[in-house]
Order: sequence, then C-alpha cells, then structure tokens
Amino acid sequence: MNIRPALDQLGLGAVKRARLHRILFEHGARNGTAMFLPYDQGLEHGPRDFFANPAASDPRYVMNLAREGGFNGVVLQIGLAEKFFWEYAGEIPLVLKLNGKTEIPSDAAALSPVNATVEDAVRLGADAVGYTLYVGTPAQEADFEQYRKVREDAARFGMPLIVWAYPRGSAIEAKGGKDSFYAVDYAARTASELGADVVKLNFPHPDKTTDVPAPYAETFTSQQAIDHVVRSANRSLVLISGGSKAGDDAMLEKARESMEAGTTGLIFGRNVWQREHDESLKFVSELRTILEKHPTQRWGG
Amino acid sequence: MNIRPALDQLGLGAVKRARLHRILFEHGARNGTAMFLPYDQGLEHGPRDFFANPAASDPRYVMNLAREGGFNGVVLQIGLAEKFFWEYAGEIPLVLKLNGKTEIPSDAAALSPVNATVEDAVRLGADAVGYTLYVGTPAQEADFEQYRKVREDAARFGMPLIVWAYPRGSAIEAKGGKDSFYAVDYAARTASELGADVVKLNFPHPDKTTDVPAPYAETFTSQQAIDHVVRSANRSLVLISGGSKAGDDAMLEKARESMEAGTTGLIFGRNVWQREHDESLKFVSELRTILEKHPTQRWGG
Amino acid sequence: MNIRPALDQLGLGAVKRARLHRILFEHGARNGTAMFLPYDQGLEHGPRDFFANPAASDPRYVMNLAREGGFNGVVLQIGLAEKFFWEYAGEIPLVLKLNGKTEIPSDAAALSPVNATVEDAVRLGADAVGYTLYVGTPAQEADFEQYRKVREDAARFGMPLIVWAYPRGSAIEAKGGKDSFYAVDYAARTASELGADVVKLNFPHPDKTTDVPAPYAETFTSQQAIDHVVRSANRSLVLISGGSKAGDDAMLEKARESMEAGTTGLIFGRNVWQREHDESLKFVSELRTILEKHPTQRWGG
Amino acid sequence: MNIRPALDQLGLGAVKRARLHRILFEHGARNGTAMFLPYDQGLEHGPRDFFANPAASDPRYVMNLAREGGFNGVVLQIGLAEKFFWEYAGEIPLVLKLNGKTEIPSDAAALSPVNATVEDAVRLGADAVGYTLYVGTPAQEADFEQYRKVREDAARFGMPLIVWAYPRGSAIEAKGGKDSFYAVDYAARTASELGADVVKLNFPHPDKTTDVPAPYAETFTSQQAIDHVVRSANRSLVLISGGSKAGDDAMLEKARESMEAGTTGLIFGRNVWQREHDESLKFVSELRTILEKHPTQRWGG
Amino acid sequence: MNIRPALDQLGLGAVKRARLHRILFEHGARNGTAMFLPYDQGLEHGPRDFFANPAASDPRYVMNLAREGGFNGVVLQIGLAEKFFWEYAGEIPLVLKLNGKTEIPSDAAALSPVNATVEDAVRLGADAVGYTLYVGTPAQEADFEQYRKVREDAARFGMPLIVWAYPRGSAIEAKGGKDSFYAVDYAARTASELGADVVKLNFPHPDKTTDVPAPYAETFTSQQAIDHVVRSANRSLVLISGGSKAGDDAMLEKARESMEAGTTGLIFGRNVWQREHDESLKFVSELRTILEKHPTQRWGG
Repeated sequence: MNIRPALDQLGLGAVKRARLHRILFEHGARNGTAMFLPYDQGLEHGPRDFFANPAASDPRYVMNLAREGGFNGVVLQIGLAEKFFWEYAGEIPLVLKLNGKTEIPSDAAALSPVNATVEDAVRLGADAVGYTLYVGTPAQEADFEQYRKVREDAARFGMPLIVWAYPRGSAIEAKGGKDSFYAVDYAARTASELGADVVKLNFPHPDKTTDVPAPYAETFTSQQAIDHVVRSANRSLVLISGGSKAGDDAMLEKARESMEAGTTGLIFGRNVWQREHDESLKFVSELRTILEKHPTQRWGG
Repeated sequence: MNIRPALDQLGLGAVKRARLHRILFEHGARNGTAMFLPYDQGLEHGPRDFFANPAASDPRYVMNLAREGGFNGVVLQIGLAEKFFWEYAGEIPLVLKLNGKTEIPSDAAALSPVNATVEDAVRLGADAVGYTLYVGTPAQEADFEQYRKVREDAARFGMPLIVWAYPRGSAIEAKGGKDSFYAVDYAARTASELGADVVKLNFPHPDKTTDVPAPYAETFTSQQAIDHVVRSANRSLVLISGGSKAGDDAMLEKARESMEAGTTGLIFGRNVWQREHDESLKFVSELRTILEKHPTQRWGG
Repeated sequence: MNIRPALDQLGLGAVKRARLHRILFEHGARNGTAMFLPYDQGLEHGPRDFFANPAASDPRYVMNLAREGGFNGVVLQIGLAEKFFWEYAGEIPLVLKLNGKTEIPSDAAALSPVNATVEDAVRLGADAVGYTLYVGTPAQEADFEQYRKVREDAARFGMPLIVWAYPRGSAIEAKGGKDSFYAVDYAARTASELGADVVKLNFPHPDKTTDVPAPYAETFTSQQAIDHVVRSANRSLVLISGGSKAGDDAMLEKARESMEAGTTGLIFGRNVWQREHDESLKFVSELRTILEKHPTQRWGG
Repeated sequence: MNIRPALDQLGLGAVKRARLHRILFEHGARNGTAMFLPYDQGLEHGPRDFFANPAASDPRYVMNLAREGGFNGVVLQIGLAEKFFWEYAGEIPLVLKLNGKTEIPSDAAALSPVNATVEDAVRLGADAVGYTLYVGTPAQEADFEQYRKVREDAARFGMPLIVWAYPRGSAIEAKGGKDSFYAVDYAARTASELGADVVKLNFPHPDKTTDVPAPYAETFTSQQAIDHVVRSANRSLVLISGGSKAGDDAMLEKARESMEAGTTGLIFGRNVWQREHDESLKFVSELRTILEKHPTQRWGG
Repeated sequence: MNIRPALDQLGLGAVKRARLHRILFEHGARNGTAMFLPYDQGLEHGPRDFFANPAASDPRYVMNLAREGGFNGVVLQIGLAEKFFWEYAGEIPLVLKLNGKTEIPSDAAALSPVNATVEDAVRLGADAVGYTLYVGTPAQEADFEQYRKVREDAARFGMPLIVWAYPRGSAIEAKGGKDSFYAVDYAARTASELGADVVKLNFPHPDKTTDVPAPYAETFTSQQAIDHVVRSANRSLVLISGGSKAGDDAMLEKARESMEAGTTGLIFGRNVWQREHDESLKFVSELRTILEKHPTQRWGG
C-alpha cells in the first residue's frame, strides 16, 4: 500500500525523464503504469519455449501482438532488434536487453554477459535498456563491474535503465532459493542501491522460509511481502515479471496485489504469447483493466 | 519449407548489403544462394587433414579449386589470407575467419580465441568475416564478450558477419551432444538473437534425443528438423556445413533438404578437397545444380 | 594518547583540504572531529537490517536523522545518492561509497566491487568518497588494483578518500579473526601505507590472541590497543565504526577511549537508526558531547 | 625437397620486406639464408647454462661471437638489448625477443608473458621481433590473444615477426610429446595460419609415435618429416633450432637435411657458445658452408 | 671480484642517468656506492616489526634517521611518501616503491600488486622507483605483465627502476628455497634480462643445495657465490638487502663481501631501525666505512 513515486521525485536528468514519460504516459494505459512484452526467451531458454505456440517463434508475430495489445514496450536482444524493430519503430517503444545467456551451462556462478551497448540502444531508437543482475551470485564482482559500465553509459546517454534483479546461484539456493521473500526483497534493495531506474522482480514467496534470515522466517501474506519489497526498492520503479506460464486467475491476482503495492506494472512474456493469438489479447485486456485503476498520482497530491 | 528472406528485409546498412550482394549475386550461382569453401582446418585439426590429398596442404591448390568450382567465397585465417589472397583478389570473395584454435587442449570449456580483427578484413579486401561461437560452452561469458566486439566492429565497417554457431563443451555433451536437433536449433536461435548476418550450422540429428528437453524428444524427420532450425534463425541467413568427409549421396541429400528448408547454401570443405582434383569439381558441380533450383525470391513476390 | 594531526600536516592538495575542512569544521561539532552516518547496509546486509525500525528502510528518514542529529556526513551508495541526495544537497555533506557487495556469497576471498566512480562523486556534489579494502583477503591483488584507481582518481579530483580497512577472508580467520588487535592494527597501517586520507576501523579486541603474531599475544588494555592502532595509522585520520547494535554504555565507553587515543571521530549506523527516532537523537547527542571535548589542536600548539 | 619462397612471393609490405632483405641478403651468407644466435637462455633456463663456458655469461662475449661468426642476427630480451646493443648497432641485426619466462614454475599450462613491445624494437633499432607461441598449451586463449597484439603491432611498424612455435603443455605431452613429427608439423602450420613471417621449429622426430594421430604413426625418414613440416609452413620461412648441445656430426646432418627441405636457416645458441671461443667459430664456419649451398632462387627461376 | 660498471656504460637515457648520478654521487659516500633505507615493512609485515623499537613506527623517526645517517635514499610506499616526504624533499632522495602487499594470505603463488605509478613518483619528486618481482612464482604471467608496464613508464619518464628480485612461491620452495645461490643467481639474471637498472637481491647461500640444478650443487664460498651473482646481473647495478635483523659482525662481513664482488651497495632496513637511535647511527657509520673503500672506477680506468 505504497504510493508510486512521480517522475519528478526521482532525481532524473532531462533525457531519461523524457524517455520514461514517453513509455509511461504516451503508450499503454497512458497513466504512469506499464506493461512490457519481453521476448528474449529464444536466447535464455532456447526455441523450446515456442513449441507451445509455434507462431511465436517468429518475431513479427510477437511484435504485432505487442502493438495490438497496447503494450508500453517490447524487450529484444540486439539481433532481433536490428533485424525486426525497423518495421515497428515509432509505433511501440523498444527496450534493448543488453545482456543475456543460454541456459546450457551451469547456473551455480551465474553471470549474464553483455551482448550490446547503450550506444547500440541509441542507434536503434530504443527508449530504455535492460540488464540482468544476478543478485547473490558468486560471480558478483564481474557482474557488478559490467553493470557499472552499463549504468554509466545509461547516465551519459539519458537512457532509462531497467534492472532484471534476479537472485541466482549456489549461495542463494542455500538460503531459501531464488523466489523467497528474503531473496526478492534483497534483490529489490540491491537494484535500488546500485542505481536502477526501474527494477524487474519476481513476485515474492513468503512461504519459502528454509534457511532465510530470521525476520523473513515469520508469517507474511503475499500482499505484505510485495508491499515490503516495493518499499525496499524505494525510488526505483518496480515491474513484476510473469515467469513461466501459470493459471490466469493466479496471474491476475498477482497483478492486482502488485499494483496495490505501488508497483509500476508488469512484464509478462510466456503468459502472453504461449497461447493462441486472440486468447493472448483477451488476457492482456484483463491485465490492462487492472493497470487503469492505478494511475500515478501527482507529487504532493 | 520456408522462404529465404530477401536482402532488403534484413535491416542491413548499405555497406553490409553491398558486400552480401556481391557474394550472393555476383559469384557462384548468382541467384542469392551460396557455396563457401572453408580452409581453416590446418589450424583447427592440424595438417593431419591433408594426408588424404597432400596437394591440399598447399593453399594455392585450394584457392584454385575455389575459383574453378565457382564458389561464392573462400574462408581463410589471417596468415594464409595475408600470404596468398593477394594472388586471387577480385576473382573470389574472401571470408576472413577471425578466431580459431588448435584441437590439442581439451574442449570441455571450449573457447575460440580471436586471431584477427575486422580491420584486418578490410585491409585484406575481404567481403565477410567469420566467428566461431561455441554455444553452451562453460566459457560462455568470455565467448560472448569477444563476439560482441567483433559484432560491433563488423557493424562499424559494414562487414557481413558469419557466425559458426557450434554447440560445444561439457554441458552440451550432457544434453544430447553437439549435433542433436535440440543443440543445433538452440545454436541457430542464439546466433540470430546475438546479431549474426549469416549463421553456419551443422545439419540437425533429430534422432539424438538422450537427455534433451521434452519437445525435442518427439519424433521428427530430418526435413522437419532443418525446417524448424531455419525458422529459429529467422532473418539470419543459414549455411549448412559439411563436417568430416561422408558419402556423396548422403551429402547431396542433406544439401537438397537444406535448400528446401530455406537455407542460403552450403559450406563444404573436407568433402570437397579431401579427394582428387577432378572428382572435387564433379562433386561441386552436383551441389551447384541443387543451389540453382533455389533462387532467392523477391520480397512480397 | 596521541595528538590528532592538523590538516596542514597531511601533505594535502588544496581541494582535498578544502573539502575536509568543510566536513570537519563547518558541520557537526565544528572542531575537527567528525560523526558520520553510514547507510549502505541495505546493500551490505540486505533489508533485514530495517526490521528493527521499519521507518529506517526509507532513505529520507535516515537523511532527516543525519540533518537533525548534526552529523558531519552521510554515507550512501550511488543509487540512493542519485535518487535522494538532491533534496539535502548543501545541508549535509555526502560521502559516496564507491564499492560494496551483498553478503550472500562466501566471504572467504572477499572483494568489494566498485559500483561508482570519483567522477560520480563530483557530479553528485559529494565531499568525500569511501572504499572498502578487505585487508588480508586472498583476493588482495584485485582489491589493491581497483583501490589504486580510486586513489588516483581521488587525487586527480581533490576528493578525500575514506578507506573502510576491514580485515577479512580465510587467512585472517586463521590468525585471530577480523576484530583482533593484530588485524585492526595491520589494517590501520595498510590504509596509511596505501594513501588513505581517512581510515575507518573497527575497535580492536586485544583479547583475541589465538594464532596472532607474538607481540600481539601479550596483554593489552583496550585503551593501549586503540592508542597503538592510531599510531600505526599515523597521518591517516581515524574513524571508529560502530558495527552491529550493542549496549549504549559500551558504545559510549568505546567512543571515549577512541577520542582519547586521537581518532577523529565515529561512524555509527545501526547503533543510531535501529531504534526509535527520538532515542536515536538522544544517543547521538551523547556521542557529540564526547566529541566536543576533543578538538583538533593547532599544529605546533 | 621444397623451393624456399622468394621475398616477393610473401605478400609483405615494403618495410617488412626491406628489413628481411637486410637480414637475409646483407648479412651472413648474403644469399637468402640465415643463421641466428639466440641469447635468451639466461631468462629461459637461468645462468646454469653458462657454467659450461663461463665467459658466455657476459653478453659482450656472445655479441662479439655473433659478429665474428658472421651471424645474420642476435636474439636478445629487452634488458640486454638496452644495455648492450648500442655498442654493436649497425654491425649485426637485432631480433628483439618480446616474450619469455623462467623455467621455475610448472609448464603444464605454459604461457610466455610479453616483456617488451614492437615499439621497443623500433626504438632499439631491431630488424625483427620474436614471439614464443606454445602450441597446444591449455593457456591457448591467453597465448593467442597476446600474440595477436604482437602481430598487429608488427604489421603496423613493418617489423618481421619470427614465431618460436613450440608445442608445449600437458595436452601435447599426452599426444607424442613436444618433439614428435605430429607436434612440430602442427606447430609449423599453426604459425603459418596465424601469420608468422618466419617460424622457428625444433627438428621433428618421426619416431615419437605414441598416441599421435593415425597418419603420423606411419614410418617416415627424418628427411621426409622435415620436408613435410616445411610444406605445412608454406610461405612462412622456416628456421630450425639447435636445442640443447649435441654432437657436432648430428647437428651438421640435421642442418643439411633442413636446408635440403627448403628451410631458410638455423638458430643455434647453446651448440655455439657452450664451447671454447675458437671451437665455436670453427663449428659456425661448418654450418655456414652448408648454408652457402642453398641460396634463395628467384621467383619463377 | 668484478668491476662495477660506470654510468656511461649502461645505455641509459639522459634523465635516468641524471637521477642515478644524483643518488650515487650527490648523496651518501658520493663515490658511486649507495646505502638505502627501506621503510615499507609496515605494509609487507605489518606493525609487528615496530615492537622492537616503537619509535620506528613513526615515519618521521625513520626519515630523520636516513638524513642523519647520510643514506642515499629512503624507500616508501605511496601513502607515507605523500604524507611525509614533503618535509624532507631535496634533503634525501626518495625511492617510491610501486608495489607491495600484506603477508596475510598465502605466498604460494605470490604476486605483489601495483599500488602507485611512475607518474606518482614524478609528482612526488622521487628519484627512482622500486618494483618487487617474485622470480619463479606460479603467478609469473601476471607479474611480468605488470612489471612491463612499470618498465615502460620508467623509460618514458626517465625514472631509474630498482627491481626487488625475490625468488618466491611453491616452485622455488621445491628447488632449494628462496635464499639459495641457485635462486638468487637466477633472480639476478632475470632482472637483468628484463631491464632492471638496479637489482636488489638477498645474499646467496651456496650451502642450500637440496634439489637445485647440478652446477649449483657443487661447493662454493660465499664470496664465490656473490661474485657469480654480480656477473649474472651484468650491467644491472646490484644492491644487497639486509633481511631480518642479524648479528652485526655477520652483517658487516656480508657487506664487505658484497662490495668486493662489485655490488653498488646495501639496502638495510630492520638491521638499522630495529635498535636504539644512536646504535643505529653507529652501525650505519660502520657500513659507510666499507662503502667508502669501493668507489666506482672510471670507464676504461
């Protein structure tokens, strides 16, 4: 039950602010909320994700869906951005995902290598960049170092930085796992401390309490947990990710609780395009109804 | 059964497009297809590959073969390119292979170090560069990092980038091996997501299903598999590699299925030059007959 | 029982000196002593530290506390500095902490990666920067290397450098642990040898003598130990950190002994904000009374 | 029984060609052959190599020997080059060895670190640079990377690049060892593929066949082996190294077979200076007689 | 029984030569010999070294000693140089030690990280820089790489380079240990081959013969050993270090033998300042008497 911060509270420079304004107030519900369509699973999981709906293997199919569904942006890796975004430029904002990896080797010391630069994002007409930070990974030093360069470039070019703050690696597995309230809360704060403009988080699971620090071993409702996480993120805007495809009612409830908690919106991929075209649009329209109820309030308002 | 994309659909800059046009429409079958002659085995496998036809140890022999056989390009490492290409410049396009390694140390965490730069390619008059990406290697971070620099330089100099997308390393061996449909399909998508203009792939083996993800454990024909792989590569043009020397009928059948699936062509080395000179040309002429049946269609045509 | 060095004895350039003068003589007790409020625990420990006083999860709460309590500075990571310091600029000095890490992975070869630069500090209006050096860590080479770049940049921009000199890692655990007199004394000297303007230390525990070098296995009072440590730091000004929350009497006694020993002041975080607002201010006021008794003496005076 | 390539067949730029001409046609036998005196054993093996002839510990002794014996060049590391070459500049060409190491730590993952640059070579008046590439080492990535920088600098400054192509490391030990025909042949090709102007090789041992690839397990004479190796090197000029001191008759026979095979010459160190002064010159004169019989033939001649 | 080289034999540029002249002929015995006072033990060993004479914990005490004792230079790390040298500038030459480390973590793969640059040395008014090279360490690649940058910078700025050539690490421990004649001789040569202007060595122990290479397993007097070592260093000037505090007679004898052998001088720290003030000066005066008997002879004289 937090109030989402207004753009003029965030200490942003003019260009970052202009781009965030374009994404949040000139697309989608146009009320400061956002719904993004991520489409980097072909790299992160491989084409196996497309068997559920083979049409989604084609980037044009997904780009069209983003346009029809009124999304605030589509998230692409450099290759698809270069080859496909030119057909959609101006119609839907692009978030260029700057790092990514295959799921083939072990995740024990996860690190997501940088595949593109903020300069690439500028060149391609993107309005934001994305970076996956594996919070808690034993490769933390390398991760923070490459993240820092991205943050500096994003500041220099006025490009909003969306951090995929994902608890990951052997150490987090030993302390409640990657979806625990503890892990998601720590991830939210880490992104905020390190300068994320927007942070993408998984919905916290307060029931995962094995070997988590004491305060998190208490009983919390999911609403309490997501409220807490949004406070930990303070002035980093929060997006909740969908994760693997789940039941629609559960997803909608998760969306409602997130928006109640003061998040900015949702970033749902497989839950959207791993179903038939018209069903996708119907589900998106239900999500949008929720977002429309949670406009950003004026500062001091 | 896909339609090979036309050059004007690929989001290319003018210089990359001009070079690809030169390779695809001014050499070989001149119909948008391509047949490349790779000659980096002296580094990758050592001179042991030349015992089958000792004449092939001499780069001039192979360069002459490429010219006589009407190839769309020859692939060389920096050393041979510097010492031999000047005698053939203008007569046959050069693909400068930018990385490579010996096969002596272990491949468990395979990484192919960069031995030359895109600037070298420009200086030597090459029309494309090649990079081996070991998809799934535990050295993924280092591989993606050096690949990114190559991609950026290729963009800057307008040099088409051909990615040798090779599943390799201990993790892929544990999930069906490097030739499985799963591995080749993932490799195709990875190259596409990371911005390859052209991707070189091994022909997929849908019968290798041990420990692959569920969707790939189903039964597929080889035609279905190669069709799927080409879709995963979307707007990255696909070349199918020959691998070690095999029976001619099998190779021709593989070539036919590949062209049916919408690939751009073939990149056959040992299958070409590990035989006597005139036999090589005869085999090449049979391959060419296949390519001539699959011209690139006009966009919207 | 040492005399704290005056600013004109430290070999400082004009800009560093001006900034230290601003911190030490234009804020707080304005007598050359200092009390800093560190607020990077959200990254170093995660939001679990805020459960004791949930209001402290909000950076504005802590910034207000720093202002009300008359601190000489507040210590923030880049993210909070960017999003919150603009509301307080000019009212309280900012120390930008340049490195930091989560506590999730193992500390055996501890290294605190750099998350921001001295240029960021200049851009944000900071008056000092902070760097955590893990003295004795097996990752010493990497630590010293990144430290050196920070030191050089700090010299170039005239930015005072506060070194968090923390004994840490498997080797120090095998020689008396991170709080022993031996470890803290070595850490003080290391910071001084490497060019810290100010060094932040834990209070030494002369009773931790297991496996320490011979001279430290003798009996020392805590006053003797802190006196010795301050001499080891010679012309690096010393700040004593509070560590985790402890009893007030113990903390005040520690503060008194530190100031007697010639330290410059205190850097207490959790001991301050892990309690109710007015209690915090009361505790701070007691600390301040101690500092007021220990003004810097004129050189030669 | 190969024909040594002429300088105008090598695709060289003007400056590299001028320097090679100076070395090959203005010193020594002045007929396109070469005899180099390497003097980096003080680093590679330590001063233990000088006990056989203590006078050779003094660089001036060895430099004088090179001058008196009419060598085509002397090979030095940066330190000796700086301190001693100024007394001999113009009288004998200098090959600056750019990398080197002590033999103290393990060779299992051998890598020879770069100790000097091509710029140093230009500054000191050298006419070529040398680089040790440990073919087959598990540290292949790092080796190829630092080699590439040397190759690029050598190209930029027109400095001929002599590659010491040495099979080395645990993997090559498991496949016949560092002197096998297989290993030397692969090393020759690797240097050629990677752009060596000149490659320094050990004489191949076709009798070392344990665990080598099949084609090398056949029976070959030493003349057949060295012929094959020279073909693998194609347009990289070949120098045969002497290795540790051996019987004179064996060395002279090795020299004869090498020159028959089309190598450019010899690089003998310990076999020269690990004996009394006049004996050294006598042995050198016998080597020279062999070289004089193998002038470079005109291209097309 | 070697003749120490004169400055004009060393191939030095004008600025290095001017600085060496200042150190060797305008301070101390002013006869080409040198006595340095090293004071980096606070970093290398920690403050435990100061318990023998607590006054020596204060850099001013040691700087005063250097001035009173007529040393040719004092050796400091960057931190003490910045904070204390300004009070002594012009009165005694400064050698800025550029690398160093704590003794806390394991020395098995010793590497001394760079803490300051040659530019720092210029800025602080130093007349030489020092670098510790751990000869034989398994971290040889990293050591040589950072050393090379220091050597290049020293050449560029005309700053004489003193190399602490210390055999160290697990491999040297397995071959006679760090003080053996073998190890010290190899270290001397390594520094010379890599371009040290001056090399600091431990006095060799010819009786440590376990597992050393054959030539060093013979019987040598200490005078023979040090003579040999100085020849191995050829035109790198040699300084002999004192090491941990030992009996005065032994130290003076060691000094005498070293000067007989043609070294340039001594670098004694703990043997000097780990005793009462006047005793220090008395010992120093005895060392000086030895140095006065060994002036540098004119070249050709």
